Amino acid sequence: MIVVLKPNTPEEAIEALKKEITSENNVEINHSQGTETTILGLIGETQHVDIHKLRSKGIVEKVLRVQEPYKKASRSFHPKDTIIDVNGAKIGEGFFAVMAGPCSVESEEQLTGIAEAVKASGATFLRGGAFKPRTSPYAFQGLGPAGLELLVKAKKATGLPIVTEVMDISQLAAFDDVDVIQVGARNMQNFTLLKELGHVGKPILLKRGMSATMRDLLMAAEYIMAGGNDDVILCERGIRTFETATRNTLDLSIIPVLKRHTHLPIIIDPSHATGLSWAVESMAKAALAAGADGLMVEVHNDPQKALCDGDQALTPEMFDHIMSQLKRYAQIEEKAI
Amino acid sequence: MIVVLKPNTPEEAIEALKKEITSENNVEINHSQGTETTILGLIGETQHVDIHKLRSKGIVEKVLRVQEPYKKASRSFHPKDTIIDVNGAKIGEGFFAVMAGPCSVESEEQLTGIAEAVKASGATFLRGGAFKPRTSPYAFQGLGPAGLELLVKAKKATGLPIVTEVMDISQLAAFDDVDVIQVGARNMQNFTLLKELGHVGKPILLKRGMSATMRDLLMAAEYIMAGGNDDVILCERGIRTFETATRNTLDLSIIPVLKRHTHLPIIIDPSHATGLSWAVESMAKAALAAGADGLMVEVHNDPQKALCDGDQALTPEMFDHIMSQLKRYAQIEEKAI
Amino acid sequence: MIVVLKPNTPEEAIEALKKEITSENNVEINHSQGTETTILGLIGETQHVDIHKLRSKGIVEKVLRVQEPYKKASRSFHPKDTIIDVNGAKIGEGFFAVMAGPCSVESEEQLTGIAEAVKASGATFLRGGAFKPRTSPYAFQGLGPAGLELLVKAKKATGLPIVTEVMDISQLAAFDDVDVIQVGARNMQNFTLLKELGHVGKPILLKRGMSATMRDLLMAAEYIMAGGNDDVILCERGIRTFETATRNTLDLSIIPVLKRHTHLPIIIDPSHATGLSWAVESMAKAALAAGADGLMVEVHNDPQKALCDGDQALTPEMFDHIMSQLKRYAQIEEKAI
Amino acid sequence: MIVVLKPNTPEEAIEALKKEITSENNVEINHSQGTETTILGLIGETQHVDIHKLRSKGIVEKVLRVQEPYKKASRSFHPKDTIIDVNGAKIGEGFFAVMAGPCSVESEEQLTGIAEAVKASGATFLRGGAFKPRTSPYAFQGLGPAGLELLVKAKKATGLPIVTEVMDISQLAAFDDVDVIQVGARNMQNFTLLKELGHVGKPILLKRGMSATMRDLLMAAEYIMAGGNDDVILCERGIRTFETATRNTLDLSIIPVLKRHTHLPIIIDPSHATGLSWAVESMAKAALAAGADGLMVEVHNDPQKALCDGDQALTPEMFDHIMSQLKRYAQIEEKAI
Repeated sequence: MIVVLKPNTPEEAIEALKKEITSENNVEINHSQGTETTILGLIGETQHVDIHKLRSKGIVEKVLRVQEPYKKASRSFHPKDTIIDVNGAKIGEGFFAVMAGPCSVESEEQLTGIAEAVKASGATFLRGGAFKPRTSPYAFQGLGPAGLELLVKAKKATGLPIVTEVMDISQLAAFDDVDVIQVGARNMQNFTLLKELGHVGKPILLKRGMSATMRDLLMAAEYIMAGGNDDVILCERGIRTFETATRNTLDLSIIPVLKRHTHLPIIIDPSHATGLSWAVESMAKAALAAGADGLMVEVHNDPQKALCDGDQALTPEMFDHIMSQLKRYAQIEEKAI
Repeated sequence: MIVVLKPNTPEEAIEALKKEITSENNVEINHSQGTETTILGLIGETQHVDIHKLRSKGIVEKVLRVQEPYKKASRSFHPKDTIIDVNGAKIGEGFFAVMAGPCSVESEEQLTGIAEAVKASGATFLRGGAFKPRTSPYAFQGLGPAGLELLVKAKKATGLPIVTEVMDISQLAAFDDVDVIQVGARNMQNFTLLKELGHVGKPILLKRGMSATMRDLLMAAEYIMAGGNDDVILCERGIRTFETATRNTLDLSIIPVLKRHTHLPIIIDPSHATGLSWAVESMAKAALAAGADGLMVEVHNDPQKALCDGDQALTPEMFDHIMSQLKRYAQIEEKAI
Repeated sequence: MIVVLKPNTPEEAIEALKKEITSENNVEINHSQGTETTILGLIGETQHVDIHKLRSKGIVEKVLRVQEPYKKASRSFHPKDTIIDVNGAKIGEGFFAVMAGPCSVESEEQLTGIAEAVKASGATFLRGGAFKPRTSPYAFQGLGPAGLELLVKAKKATGLPIVTEVMDISQLAAFDDVDVIQVGARNMQNFTLLKELGHVGKPILLKRGMSATMRDLLMAAEYIMAGGNDDVILCERGIRTFETATRNTLDLSIIPVLKRHTHLPIIIDPSHATGLSWAVESMAKAALAAGADGLMVEVHNDPQKALCDGDQALTPEMFDHIMSQLKRYAQIEEKAI
Repeated sequence: MIVVLKPNTPEEAIEALKKEITSENNVEINHSQGTETTILGLIGETQHVDIHKLRSKGIVEKVLRVQEPYKKASRSFHPKDTIIDVNGAKIGEGFFAVMAGPCSVESEEQLTGIAEAVKASGATFLRGGAFKPRTSPYAFQGLGPAGLELLVKAKKATGLPIVTEVMDISQLAAFDDVDVIQVGARNMQNFTLLKELGHVGKPILLKRGMSATMRDLLMAAEYIMAGGNDDVILCERGIRTFETATRNTLDLSIIPVLKRHTHLPIIIDPSHATGLSWAVESMAKAALAAGADGLMVEVHNDPQKALCDGDQALTPEMFDHIMSQLKRYAQIEEKAI
């Protein structure tokens, strides 16, 4: 962290500031005195330094970050790629995971049918929502705990590990048989929930918020990791921009940049990003080509009757076709799918 | 809601769709048959119609909204401005509320000192955070329940009603003596929390999410109101845009547009929007001039030592100066301040 | 176009509006009268209807578009993919074009060296800037006409057709030997320039503006096409969002959506989009996988000495490696590269 | 400018870089050597340093700006507010200018009628478009030179100085009798045009581009000023964000921030920002309260018949009412209106 002081700051004020900084933080200060400008370089645990406090000081001109404010999520702290193993289904480095299933769990028949179909096409996880964050209070809100039970049944029937979303701490008690707990985009900065998830012994799928920067996303991961849970899977699902031709704008360029900054696996959700079932294939292939570690896609046996987001769901046939394409791409990239 | 069908859709398919729509929704259909285009106009409780499901139909070209998807929050449903009365402190229509206080509650001395100062200058509410949503897990997270107790003490000392943020349902039990419960921007679409707040008998201050459209904001209010709690105060606190010269971009133009669409009061938080203490005066005056029903501003007795967001806090002297300016503006606008 | 009138609009006012619309536009009106709502469906040349004028009418509640406001650029007007042939180098449908070269033309030696290298690796066009739109007036502004001459020399030496940017109508006279004229992102809505380019007999490479929606982009193409020049190549080069980890946010999801709406070819510029040379490979592969018709990438023989945007330029070795990868992808997609 | 080098960079490489920087730029280097990190502080004419080139160096970790890249537009270079005097009509510091008139010049009768009306209400400039940048090639494109003649007639009739937009260098010859030349938002980075305007002896009204940061705007002003023309009036007219309830999002918070960074006057265009005539009053008052130096608003004698943007035009009556309000606000702010 670099602190640029205002020109002609008196020496005593500089010394007082340095004392305050070192007394409150575990950092060393590299003091560089020019004829006009004074620059303080802070080295050490700068993750803990309160940048707003520094900026509020009358003698401070500017504070610039050199190191990122996260640590456990950072690749410089942990250079090797993290591979997350969920009962044998792996995500990260050479392992490309495909999580497929309906937007919301509707019935046993629907869910098991879809689960069997996506497994046959090569999916490695079953996704499905029991608690649904809907924009309208008048829309179908999910089956709740009964939905979780149906997911567990489908898991037993197919052997696929299950991924499903938690919306509130109070629901966590019912997640015992869930394999991967998903945090939705709208909850990415629900810090109370993130802290709690630092203490569950399960991998967390953390979706990027609609207006979260890469740094915000990694700070949210850091919240979970700071609590002791290192198994975080990041998920890009579209950010909010001025463009309305797609529901959100899928930010695939975050993939190579994330790969530089973090060791955590990153998967892509093209269904929510575009909101258009016919655009999913294009984005799924692009995600693999760009270096993603997996996909999360919505598949429904009868999209026109779906209780939730029917316009973005693939049919099992469309999904099967996409999987066959992805396998050819995975070969080029030497990834296991 | 207007449903445009694809050209040359066979009549039976049209009739089947109409039947499906009317069997699932409380709407009437106005069928307009052109030579090529078929347009279905849905009239009635269109708030409950699943637009995604309609869009997933093979014969549907486009679905366009005419009515907004919220009802209780809508001005057409409730033409008169809502005035919220908190122990005599009013917000809405002619009443301009000023909520002032520190970002986070730090100590009894700090809080009571600030509370007395802002009251003397004309603030009508005391704000202060006990549970703090911080971007970094390593930053000060607030005093928690102890902070709430200090707020209650300051309320007793000054008579100012208190506004403070809840981050999770589990904290609500401790909010008995709080007057207005705040939902932060990052929790605006924490639907589980919103539903719960529909059942507390207190006004809710709902902050607009960083990437929430006006419609998203009103749908979040609708969640609370659908549960039976009609006392919702909306708060614009800056949206996320490409501009980094300010922390967020304060969207003051949402004020006149919200006034057209809803009867709920709307206040402005210039402190979080700009992140710059020296920009607060300009934006506070602009908010009043634009038609806002109140302000929420951060005031700290010693910003350079603040445990949270010191760079955006006003000193009591700055706040006093702003209040004297606002009173002159309020006179022109014939608002009680 | 659908015009929803306010409830209880008197019949004479409706008839007057209908008369005004049909007298000024070549459209038919489909009048649908409900008990409360009146809906007018406009069918015909709605591209010419002034939507702002309609919205200014006191009796109009809402105006909704059904058809897009462009025509010549629209796929419904021209269902087959457009293939643009530049001296045998093709772009569109099955032909994947690669335009490579330096950000700015610096010297004959530099340019010809790069041109030969990229040709050897498989590039099909040489790109290079002679007129440079730089953010700072103090930065290198390009060699101007002398740069164009060097491009023509390199074209003669290698046989590669050349693509270069025009910034103003007054420069066009010097573009006689240029094969494809580029319009930069900042000039995408320089309508005077676009109109002029409607009359030159050369293909235009039209870069999407940083805040241009898909519709804005296609309307800019329509400006050129309305003048009689049908050879427009669209180029996505990143849009401006809140994310600063990359220079811009590359919107690859626009590819499948553009393919639905237009017959024009679309290429991707990953160099400007990310501003990061090490992210270009990932995005180049993703672009091909997503369905793009080509790429525009910056290659420099010595990026560390480049007079312009050195941080985003590939070395010839990096470019060669990327091309070998792209050829394998092209095989899967059955595209000629 | 601060250049952070990678850890363990060998001394020779550091010295070579320092030599390169000082040989190409008029700066001094403040070398600060820590145990691990090396920081180079560049002081002097850093406006001319190529930041991209520095970032392309293999040994460079990060480059951070301390000073802004503009100079003539900067308040640190010119601390006193600039006041622009146009035949006695002043803009800046204590002078609040009101530029009013139709979106496009349509006829002599229309223009002179509006000009007289707005003058009577207190407008100090007449605005009106002769060359119109329309999104659609099929929309009315303005009267061109004939429109300029009508503006000059109205100027003679009323004495109001005129402001009108230039879209291309080739049109400038006809601007002899124009008092203030406007550059539209879509041309803000038409650098060829900006350079030319550096050599005309007239004030330039520079509109902020829809996705221009404050820095981009000031760099565009710098282009004009670098050519010798110091009379630049900045105009905020809404930026493009995800919010569609208003046409653009009016960024009023840029006012106090611009006032810190530049000495140039800044005016606000609420008509284009909101696109809603009924929202103009609210935003006009807010602009004055926020510290703006003036307004640009659209007024039309018959908005329902306007050839351009009728939905955002005020009637003369609405304008007169707003002016009476603004005069009361101006009194508080001690501004001449």
